[in-house]
Amino acid sequence: MSKSKEDYEAALARLQLALVETQVKAMAEGWKICVVLEGRDAAGKDGAIKRITEHLSPRNTRIVALPKPSDRERGQWFLQRYVAQLPSAGEFVIFNRSWYNRAGVERVMGFSTPAEQETFLREAPAFEAMLTDSGIKLVKYWLDITKEEQAERLDARRSDPLRQLKVSPLDAEAQKKWDAYSQARDDMLIRTDSEASPWWCLTTNKKKRARLNLIRHLLGQLGAPDIEAPDPDTLFRFEAEAIKDGRLAP
Amino acid sequence: MSKSKEDYEAALARLQLALVETQVKAMAEGWKICVVLEGRDAAGKDGAIKRITEHLSPRNTRIVALPKPSDRERGQWFLQRYVAQLPSAGEFVIFNRSWYNRAGVERVMGFSTPAEQETFLREAPAFEAMLTDSGIKLVKYWLDITKEEQAERLDARRSDPLRQLKVSPLDAEAQKKWDAYSQARDDMLIRTDSEASPWWCLTTNKKKRARLNLIRHLLGQLGAPDIEAPDPDTLFRFEAEAIKDGRLAP
Amino acid sequence: MSKSKEDYEAALARLQLALVETQVKAMAEGWKICVVLEGRDAAGKDGAIKRITEHLSPRNTRIVALPKPSDRERGQWFLQRYVAQLPSAGEFVIFNRSWYNRAGVERVMGFSTPAEQETFLREAPAFEAMLTDSGIKLVKYWLDITKEEQAERLDARRSDPLRQLKVSPLDAEAQKKWDAYSQARDDMLIRTDSEASPWWCLTTNKKKRARLNLIRHLLGQLGAPDIEAPDPDTLFRFEAEAIKDGRLAP
Amino acid sequence: MSKSKEDYEAALARLQLALVETQVKAMAEGWKICVVLEGRDAAGKDGAIKRITEHLSPRNTRIVALPKPSDRERGQWFLQRYVAQLPSAGEFVIFNRSWYNRAGVERVMGFSTPAEQETFLREAPAFEAMLTDSGIKLVKYWLDITKEEQAERLDARRSDPLRQLKVSPLDAEAQKKWDAYSQARDDMLIRTDSEASPWWCLTTNKKKRARLNLIRHLLGQLGAPDIEAPDPDTLFRFEAEAIKDGRLAP
Repeated sequence: MSKSKEDYEAALARLQLALVETQVKAMAEGWKICVVLEGRDAAGKDGAIKRITEHLSPRNTRIVALPKPSDRERGQWFLQRYVAQLPSAGEFVIFNRSWYNRAGVERVMGFSTPAEQETFLREAPAFEAMLTDSGIKLVKYWLDITKEEQAERLDARRSDPLRQLKVSPLDAEAQKKWDAYSQARDDMLIRTDSEASPWWCLTTNKKKRARLNLIRHLLGQLGAPDIEAPDPDTLFRFEAEAIKDGRLAP
Repeated sequence: MSKSKEDYEAALARLQLALVETQVKAMAEGWKICVVLEGRDAAGKDGAIKRITEHLSPRNTRIVALPKPSDRERGQWFLQRYVAQLPSAGEFVIFNRSWYNRAGVERVMGFSTPAEQETFLREAPAFEAMLTDSGIKLVKYWLDITKEEQAERLDARRSDPLRQLKVSPLDAEAQKKWDAYSQARDDMLIRTDSEASPWWCLTTNKKKRARLNLIRHLLGQLGAPDIEAPDPDTLFRFEAEAIKDGRLAP
Repeated sequence: MSKSKEDYEAALARLQLALVETQVKAMAEGWKICVVLEGRDAAGKDGAIKRITEHLSPRNTRIVALPKPSDRERGQWFLQRYVAQLPSAGEFVIFNRSWYNRAGVERVMGFSTPAEQETFLREAPAFEAMLTDSGIKLVKYWLDITKEEQAERLDARRSDPLRQLKVSPLDAEAQKKWDAYSQARDDMLIRTDSEASPWWCLTTNKKKRARLNLIRHLLGQLGAPDIEAPDPDTLFRFEAEAIKDGRLAP
Repeated sequence: MSKSKEDYEAALARLQLALVETQVKAMAEGWKICVVLEGRDAAGKDGAIKRITEHLSPRNTRIVALPKPSDRERGQWFLQRYVAQLPSAGEFVIFNRSWYNRAGVERVMGFSTPAEQETFLREAPAFEAMLTDSGIKLVKYWLDITKEEQAERLDARRSDPLRQLKVSPLDAEAQKKWDAYSQARDDMLIRTDSEASPWWCLTTNKKKRARLNLIRHLLGQLGAPDIEAPDPDTLFRFEAEAIKDGRLAP
C-alpha cells in the first residue's frame, strides 16, 4: 500500500472510531441525527455514505434514497414522504438526496412547476427550523465538483460495467445543463441556508480528502471531542461570496 | 316529528347534498381537504363529524382520531404522525382532535413540557402555511361550549351506558380545570390564528344550530355556490376581542 | 314513530349497548377484532357499519375502505396493503370490502388475471388462519340480496342526489353481470370458508332485520353474554347447500 | 496484495458485475427480490450484505434490519411489520435477520412464548408460499459457523473498538447457550424448509469463500447465465442429514 493510501486509511479508521463512539452516545441519549447529502451527479454521495456508515449499527442507521414518488405520493404534500423517514430517538438517518430534489433536478428538468419550486425554496428553512427545534440534529452538506471532474467521473462510470446502475439517462444532462444546475444550486444555497440549518459546502474533486473532512466536520457538529477541524478550503459554511470567488465550481 | 325537528332535518339534508356535490367536484379536481375539529370535551365534535360525513364517499373520506402515540412515535418529531395522515389528491380528511393536543390537553395535564408546548405554538402557523401553500384546503374549527353546558353533557354521558366509551378519566378534569383549559384555549387561538389558516369559532351550546352553521361555513370555504351565510353569533372568525366580550365561554 | 320502528330502535339500542360493553372489555384485554363485510353493491354494508360503530370509541375503532391501489401498491404482494390495516391490541377494525375484491369485482370485471384470482382463493384460508392463530378475532360476513332488491336500491340511489357518491360506473354492471357475480360469490364462499374462518351469510333484503341479526351474531362471536341468537333464516353459516336451496339469492 | 487476495477480489468483482446485470434486468422486468439472511451472531451477515449490495442501485435496493418492535407493533400480528418491508416491483430487499427471530433469539432468550414460537414454525412455510406465489423471488440463507470460530470472532469484536456497535449484551449468551441455539436452528430448518421456499445453508468459517459461494448461488437462483456452481461443501440445500453428519456445526 502506498504511503498516502496508508495515511488515508489510518485517518479514516480513526474518524470511523469516533463515529462509532458518537453513535454509542447517540443511542444512549436518544439523539435524532439527520444528515442530508446533496450535490451534482457523481459528486461523491454514495462513497461518502459508505464510509460514514461502515461501522455503524445496522439497526440504528438508515440510508434513505427514495425512488420516484408513487401516484398517490404525487397527490400529497411534497414533504410528506420525506417526513415519514425522519429519525426516531436513537436513530441516525442519512438522506442520499432529499427534499432538495425540488430545487435541483426538478427545476432543471422541469419535473415540477416554477411555482412549486418557489414555494419549496420559501418554506424549506421554516420546515427545517421545525425539525431542529424538535431536537433533530440536522446537518446538510452540498458536495461540489468541477465540470471537468464530473465529466471524467461520468465517463469512467460509462466505461465501467460494474457501475452501470449509477448511470442514468439524466447523466447526459448533467454536463449539458451544467449552467442551469449551477444556477439552481446557487439559488438553493442562498435561499435555504439559515442559522438553524446552515449549508456546509464540501469540495469533492479529491475524494479521499473530501471524505475525511466531511466526517471530521460531522463529528464536530455532533460534539465529538478531540476531532481535528476540517480544512477550510475543503469544507466551509456556505456564503454567497463562495459563488463569486469560485470556491463553488462555476 | 316536531316542526323544529322537521326544519332541522330538511336544512341538514340540503346542506349534506351540497357537501356531496362539493365532494364530487373535489374528487374530480383532486382537491385535498383537511378539516380540523378542536374543542373541549363534549363540545360536539363526534356529532358534527357524523353529520358532515353521513353521505360522503367512504373511500375518499377519512376520519382521523389518533390513539396515544406509540413509544417509537414519542421519539419522533411531534408532527410526524399527523403528517402521515394528511389528505392525498381527492381525499377529504377530518381530524377529530389534532396536533393541537399539544396546546390543550398536554398543557393542562402536563403530558409534555412547557418548552415543547411553546415550540408548538410558535411553529403551528408556519406548519399550516406549508400545508395551505401546497394546495391543501385546511379549515380549522374551535367548538366552544359553556361550563354549565359541558357539566350537563358530561353528566348525561355518565348516566347513559350507551355513551360510556365517551367517558374518559380526563372528563373529571374538564370541569375542575376549566380555567386552565380556558387559558390554554385563549393562548392557542391567539397564537395560531393566521391569515393563511384562521380559526373559526363555533358556539355549540345549541347542537343543531351549531352543526348547520358549521356545514354552511365549511361549504362556503370550499366554494359551494348558493349557501346561506352562517349566523355570525354562532360561527365567527377568531379575534382576541371574543375572549373579552364573552363570545368564547369564560 | 310507528310501533315497528320503535321496536327496531329499542332492539338496536340494546345491541349497541352490548357492543359498547364488549369494546370496553376488548380494550381492557387487548383484543384484536377484525370484521370483514362483503357483499354485492347495495347489499347494506355502509348502513350496517354505521349502526355497529355508532357508539364505539372513535380512537379504538377504524373503518377501512381502501381506495384503488397506488402504482407502487400494484407492484407489491396483493395482501400487503390490507395487512398494514390489521388491528393492533385493543383495536376494532371493520373492513368495508376487503382482500375479497380479488375474488369478486376483480374477477367479474377482469381487473386481475385468472391466475391471480386462483392464487388468492387458494391462499385466503391460510392467510386468515395465520391471523386467527395470532389472536385476531376475525369475523367474515357475506351480505346477500336478491336481484330485484338490488335493482330497486340502485334505482333509488340514482334518483336520490344525496346518494350520488354511492353510485359508481360499476353499478350498471351489477345487474347486467348478476350471474357472473353469483358465480364469483359461490366460488369464493365455497373455497374460502374454513373452520378457522367461516363465512356468515346475512340475508339483507330486509335491512333492519339484517342489521339486528348481524349485531346479535357478532356479539355472540365476541362472547357477549345474554344475547338472543340470530334468526337462522337471516343469518347462517355458509354451506354449499345454501346455493342450491336458494338461501343465497340465485 | 497477496495472490489469494487478488484472486478473491477478481472473483468478487466478476460476481458483483453479474449482480449488477441481474438488477438491470430485475428493474426492467419488475422482479420483486427478497433475500433473507439468518445465522448466529458473528456468522457473517453484515459482511455478506456489504458485498452483495456494493454496486447495486441505492434507489432500488433496501437493507432491512428492524429494531425491536414498538409497543404498538407488539400488539399486532407478528408478521405485520415484516410484511410492510416486502419488495415492490423492481426492488431488491435484503433482510438482515427477519421473521425467523421468533424461532431463534426469541426462543432461546424467552422473548416470546413457546406457543407463539410453535405457531410461527407451523405458519412460516404457508406465509412464504404466499410470497412466492405472488411472484416474490424469496431466497433464504442460513449462515453457519462453528462454536470455536464464533468465539474467536466475538473476542475479536470485543477487542476492536471499531466494532463495538456490533457487540451486544446478547453476545455473551451466544456461546453460553450454544446448544440451545443449535436446537433452535435445527427445529427451524427442519420445520420451515419447503419446496416453495427452501433453506440454503452456507458454511461461513472461511468468510471469503462463503461470500463468493453465496453470491454465486444467489445469482443462480435469479437465473443469471454462466455462473459457476457454488461449492457443495460450502453451500448446500438443507436436509436433516446435515445436522447428523456435522455439515451444520454441532
